[in-house]
Order: sequence, then structure tokens, then C-alpha cells
Amino acid sequence: MSDPSGRSGGAIDRLTALLSKLPGLGKKSAGRILYHILEGDPSYAQLLAQELSLLHQAIRRCSLCGSFTETDPCPICADSDRDRSLICVVERPQDVRIIEDAREFRGIFHVLGGLIAPLDGVGPDKLRIGELLNRVRRDGARELILAFNPTIEGDTTALYLQKLLKDLDVEVSRLASGLPVGGDLEYADKLTLSRSFRHRTKF
Amino acid sequence: MSDPSGRSGGAIDRLTALLSKLPGLGKKSAGRILYHILEGDPSYAQLLAQELSLLHQAIRRCSLCGSFTETDPCPICADSDRDRSLICVVERPQDVRIIEDAREFRGIFHVLGGLIAPLDGVGPDKLRIGELLNRVRRDGARELILAFNPTIEGDTTALYLQKLLKDLDVEVSRLASGLPVGGDLEYADKLTLSRSFRHRTKF
Repeated sequence: MSDPSGRSGGAIDRLTALLSKLPGLGKKSAGRILYHILEGDPSYAQLLAQELSLLHQAIRRCSLCGSFTETDPCPICADSDRDRSLICVVERPQDVRIIEDAREFRGIFHVLGGLIAPLDGVGPDKLRIGELLNRVRRDGARELILAFNPTIEGDTTALYLQKLLKDLDVEVSRLASGLPVGGDLEYADKLTLSRSFRHRTKF
Repeated sequence: MSDPSGRSGGAIDRLTALLSKLPGLGKKSAGRILYHILEGDPSYAQLLAQELSLLHQAIRRCSLCGSFTETDPCPICADSDRDRSLICVVERPQDVRIIEDAREFRGIFHVLGGLIAPLDGVGPDKLRIGELLNRVRRDGARELILAFNPTIEGDTTALYLQKLLKDLDVEVSRLASGLPVGGDLEYADKLTLSRSFRHRTKF
């Protein structure tokens, strides 16, 4: 029965190893979570296990926008109240949720599934760009809002799409980049500060 | 099919809510974890679900030390190479693992299951103190090392145990409290600095 490392091992080690693979969790935080579950109500662990085991069955990709959904088309694409002439193009499915939570945008979405990143081997062919062009042509979109992160990859992808869409009758815009609301000039990095000057708005 | 909030909802919402109950995870980090799982290999989610569903069946409390274990007694209590005259008293089962990872201690453990905290309604009667006294009397322990966090509750519990054990033939010690190795005087709080003076060690 004796374990040379003197640990209780087995199930605890396996679950800690699995949990520490999740983003933002190291070995210590995975351990804290595991002991929290162990000391808690067993029904919580059962419920979590059940939801996890059914997750990939329950969730698919929307055949129109490419975001995760339980119904196809997704509730947003199926919603007749949304403005179909306005498409917000995002990198990942979770960006749809982040933007929806802000309750600012009333158009529809298109998930690219990544950003152009030559160093990581991600070229335009790996992204859902053909589908985007089809949607623009078919649905007659009036404006595309590119809502990528203000990073090198985001800028590259935005530039690429802008050139590609030049000949189509569609306006292309990007989310404003500048100082975050409630932020402090002192803590803004130089690039952000420089952008907030270049894109300053008139009163 | 349309959802008034415009979200994909359902399974995603339920799992995000469950994950955000875990210690150290808020709504945002739970969301990041969920999308990581969704975009990853479904077999990972299945494996995680399986380990979670079996966790409480696989793990019980050791009838001797009170820590979590798959076998009873636990591998540490069952290990004939460990020094039974030296008992390290800890607050929680996870403390056993933290101390084992340091590979410094070769005695056995006793998990109190908490610390005395009158404001939270935790009196000595809620802790495994009777079991500790029994073990000291029965196994003839030579020394108890109280390895509680250096907090008010840890200090209170240590003082209480020290008084209780005064009449038994057992030495009681506490883990040293002072500057962390690699730390900087400048960043030490006043209490830690004051303790490191009081408990200074001679060359």
C-alpha cells in the first residue's frame, strides 16, 4: 500500500493534472480547486461531470456565423429583429458573447476562427474568409465591423480583409482603439497613447 | 428558437455558472476555460467528466490522520518507514500534500479539519482535537509540530493546543515564522519583521 512519494496519489493526482491543463490554472490553483471540490457537496462534482460529458454533444457550430450554439442557426442568426446589413467580424466564438454582454451591437456576427499569423502558420486559407465573402454577396451587407484585438495579428487581418473587400459595395470599419474608459494617461503604453492621438475625436 | 438575450445559452451558461463557483475563478476566467474545453479535443472533456464523477467514490478520509486517501489507512500512515513519534498537525488535508511536496518532514500527520475561529462559530469541539489527544496517548508521540498558517486563527489554535497538551509528556513546537527565503526586508510587513527579530537564530 505504501507509496514511495508518500502521497495519497491516484485519483487526486490524475484530476489535478487534468485541471492544470486549463488556461490560467497552474498546479497550485488546480490543487486548490480539487480540494474545494473534495470538501464540498458530492452533488456539485456530479453536476459538473454531467455538464462536461454532454458539452460537446449539446454544442455545435452555427452554419451561418460559425459561433457555438445549441440550435442551428444560432439564436442571433435566427433573430429576425437583428440588422442583417451589419456584420461584426470576430476572431473567436467567445468574442460573440463578450460583445453581446455589452448590449451595444444589434447586427449579426461572423466568426473567422483565428487571425492571420504567418509565424504560427496561420494563413488566410485557414480562416472562414470565403464564407464571409459569400455572406456579404448573398445577404447584401452594408457594413462590416472588424472587431479584432488591437494586436499585430488583428491589424494584419484587418488590413488583409480591407483590401479583399475593396471592390465589393460594403463599408469596412474597425473598433476604436485608444485609452480605456476610467484609465489613466500615466499607465497607458506608448502605442495606445499614440493611437489615441491619431484617432482623436472632435467635440 | 430566438433567445431574448441573444445568447447561445443553455449548456454554455450552465457550465460557466458551475465553473465560476470554483475558488479563484470569476465569470471571465470560467468563460475562458469553457471555450478552451469547447474548442479542444472532446476526449479531454470526457476524461475530466469521468474523473470528477468518480472522485468522491474513490477518495475517503484516512481514519487515522483525517487526510484524503484512496486507501485506509492512507499511504503515509501505513508507511512503516515514517517516524510515528513525530506528528505534524495541520489545518486542512491539502496542507499534508504541500508539506509532502517539500520532502522535509518524515513523521506522520494529523488533520484538525479547521482552526479555532470564534467569529465564524468554529470552537474546539468542531475540530479533530479529541482524536489528536487519543493518538498522542496511544502512539506515544514525542513531538507535535503545529504547522498552521501564521494568522490569528492559527495562533489561537496553537495556543489552545499548547495549553491542552501541557500535562502530557509531549513536546509542542510551531513552524518558524519570519522573512521568506529570497524575500526583501523592504517588502516584509511589520508583523513578519517583528517576528523575525523575536525568533532570530544564532550562528
